[in-house]
Amino acid sequence: MPALDRIEQALENAVLLAQGPGAPPILASALHYAVFPGGHRIRPHLCLAVATACGDSHPRSTDAAAAAVELLHCASLVHDDLPCFDDAAMRRGKPSVHAQFGEPIAVLTGDALIVLAFDYLAREANPSELGRLISIMSAAVGAPRGIVAGQAWECEAAVPLVDYHDAKTGALFVGATMAGAAAAGADPTPWRTLGQKIGEAYQVADDLRDVLCTAEELGKPIGQDAARTRPNAAAQLGVAGAKARLEQLVEAALTSIPDCPGRTALCAAIEAQTRQLFPKQLARVAA
Amino acid sequence: MPALDRIEQALENAVLLAQGPGAPPILASALHYAVFPGGHRIRPHLCLAVATACGDSHPRSTDAAAAAVELLHCASLVHDDLPCFDDAAMRRGKPSVHAQFGEPIAVLTGDALIVLAFDYLAREANPSELGRLISIMSAAVGAPRGIVAGQAWECEAAVPLVDYHDAKTGALFVGATMAGAAAAGADPTPWRTLGQKIGEAYQVADDLRDVLCTAEELGKPIGQDAARTRPNAAAQLGVAGAKARLEQLVEAALTSIPDCPGRTALCAAIEAQTRQLFPKQLARVAA
Repeated sequence: MPALDRIEQALENAVLLAQGPGAPPILASALHYAVFPGGHRIRPHLCLAVATACGDSHPRSTDAAAAAVELLHCASLVHDDLPCFDDAAMRRGKPSVHAQFGEPIAVLTGDALIVLAFDYLAREANPSELGRLISIMSAAVGAPRGIVAGQAWECEAAVPLVDYHDAKTGALFVGATMAGAAAAGADPTPWRTLGQKIGEAYQVADDLRDVLCTAEELGKPIGQDAARTRPNAAAQLGVAGAKARLEQLVEAALTSIPDCPGRTALCAAIEAQTRQLFPKQLARVAA
Repeated sequence: MPALDRIEQALENAVLLAQGPGAPPILASALHYAVFPGGHRIRPHLCLAVATACGDSHPRSTDAAAAAVELLHCASLVHDDLPCFDDAAMRRGKPSVHAQFGEPIAVLTGDALIVLAFDYLAREANPSELGRLISIMSAAVGAPRGIVAGQAWECEAAVPLVDYHDAKTGALFVGATMAGAAAAGADPTPWRTLGQKIGEAYQVADDLRDVLCTAEELGKPIGQDAARTRPNAAAQLGVAGAKARLEQLVEAALTSIPDCPGRTALCAAIEAQTRQLFPKQLARVAA
């Protein structure tokens, strides 16, 4: 089954569990709405690609890990969009969850998706890998250094930039690569750097998009970093400097890939995926 | 070690992990503030009492299960108190988390506590019981029938009362009894009814307190059910009727306790604990 089909199927199966008998109807609708239709599903693709490179010896574990990564990503988007954070009315080209269903349901949708990610791992993953997978996912999203911590840095007067980006964006990419390896029964530790470098590349690309794209192109508001005085690599390094940094990070990501049965194919896949990160508008700028 | 010390120690250990190197300072403070000082710690006491009755063969698993139950309870309190839900300025006799630290940190504190509960289980629980413990905890707090679903029923026009109370209050008591059994390596299923009955009793007691107590006695606002037109057993059955229902539920809870090595001691402990549920003001009313 193609990677995207595996990911969408696993996500459908997971969301169906949370919509099971007895679920409050509005929450059940919001859970599906928050997860489908997806964005590029970059993190679960990465997770699946790493598992495949490591032999994909337990496909059910791989699919569960990929789904968990995406569910946690979706949860973070729903909570980040809340009025008390970004107050974003749009996400993925449609009203954000709180705009569509109200703020209480948006808080609960995020909570339920976090729980569902762990629940789905417990149901589907190989029991011998479960503890490791849960630890990897918790580190990626919780405190002290996961997404939640990253978001919390925005409440501090002084923000250590590397900690902020590592937690807010990098941690879940690290979670994706390490969980992919663990799901296939491989040692996840050597896969940390790949996630870190792709996470950094993604952050730089996101910063570029925030200054280069229109709201229509993004499906969400632009200029958010400047409006919220958040650090932005394109603002700090200039567009050309940020593009050069992006190239370096992709190269460092490829170099970091550990020896594994599918290393060559993985390098090609990562290169293709990371190319998609480069905003199309860069061609205009560079020209 | 006495039960309360085991619970507090496990909670301290868990929160310390989330406050580890790199944690944003305000979030780190809020995590501790949300968990300490605690209330009666009724759910972790129940979890530990069941595990003890089942032999407590893996004390680390027991302590982790008890801590996870309480962390999830604290997370639900922090989110329930948010302006978009109960908008409660006080909790446990001090400012609620959002009143003290702001709404963004309160959302993130709840999120981080949910993640920490699963993380701590993965670190501490016996690997052979981990999958079962995570499934029990997920069912207790997520969708379709856990706390999050219970809270989401408040957003529906028509609320099935039993589903609402089972999810909002009962589910985590069921989680506490079943996790206690599972942590000790026993079959958790026969322990469901005990959690259900204690959960119902707790709900009725809470409804009584909402109409009988002062805000000073409770450490949080009173009359919330009437103010929010939420169902309340004392309003529906009258105070004497609700008290009779409470007696029935305690009796049903005691009768449901499965055969186990420590059944007699557990009955005594449950009876003593549930007596504490009865608001002191009932003496005045019944007299």
